[in-house]
Amino acid sequence: MKNAAAALMVFVLFPAGQSSRDRVLQEGKAIEQVLRGQSAAWNRHDLEGYMAGYWNSPQLTFFSGTEISSGWQATLERYRRRYQGEGREMGKLVFSDLRIELLGSESAFVRGAYALTLSNGQTPHGIFTLIFRKFPGGWKIVHDHTSAAQ
Amino acid sequence: MKNAAAALMVFVLFPAGQSSRDRVLQEGKAIEQVLRGQSAAWNRHDLEGYMAGYWNSPQLTFFSGTEISSGWQATLERYRRRYQGEGREMGKLVFSDLRIELLGSESAFVRGAYALTLSNGQTPHGIFTLIFRKFPGGWKIVHDHTSAAQ
Repeated sequence: MKNAAAALMVFVLFPAGQSSRDRVLQEGKAIEQVLRGQSAAWNRHDLEGYMAGYWNSPQLTFFSGTEISSGWQATLERYRRRYQGEGREMGKLVFSDLRIELLGSESAFVRGAYALTLSNGQTPHGIFTLIFRKFPGGWKIVHDHTSAAQ
Repeated sequence: MKNAAAALMVFVLFPAGQSSRDRVLQEGKAIEQVLRGQSAAWNRHDLEGYMAGYWNSPQLTFFSGTEISSGWQATLERYRRRYQGEGREMGKLVFSDLRIELLGSESAFVRGAYALTLSNGQTPHGIFTLIFRKFPGGWKIVHDHTSAAQ
């Protein structure tokens, strides 16, 4: 997997006149920072810290394959079951191939890939689409659609 | 599966002052119309008509599970292989549970579900996340992330 920093690309769909290149880069970096914060939290096994990247709202949605979780709390509980339950582990998380694309001044979407490395050598991985919204407290994921490799 | 019209919900993430309720409803209807046009085209086995809902650009991306297609042409060819190849059929397509959410004035995302009914009675189905962008020619899907039920 490529390093997230090396793979980072920031795009904007809007004509140059509507948003400056500087703003695009700045917002892209802020979004990248949220994702870096998530992987750092995950890798110190801090699930609540990881979840800080998500909108803390009942309106958050998380699609994992065809399984739908609605709300921040349900999403946290799903992660707890899958990664902190009996015989489970969080492993080491790496994001890669990040493409951050602004959709106006207060929203963005991100395409990317993830890979976990577990202590048994397995490396579950997949790809995701994230919708970000800019809140007064910063950028947060409001919708996550993740597909794990079978 | 619910009927797409009955299930339609239009949301906006922005404060009321930034976009009028009327505009939100109008844009939501325009996006819904694109999806209705796609399912109608599919159901008359008009794959090019279906593909008219997608941005005709090499920058279109389509995630189907962990398979990535880049570009309109590659996406069309993938559909041809899967639904018009030897022994394949398009079947009857229904979209449901559509949640259309505007992300500013020129972009939106849509959560929803699809189901096909094939002549052998099978009903492959799944869920999707679509990113829409408003072009001079109307709303088009610029990114599709679909997960099929296993």
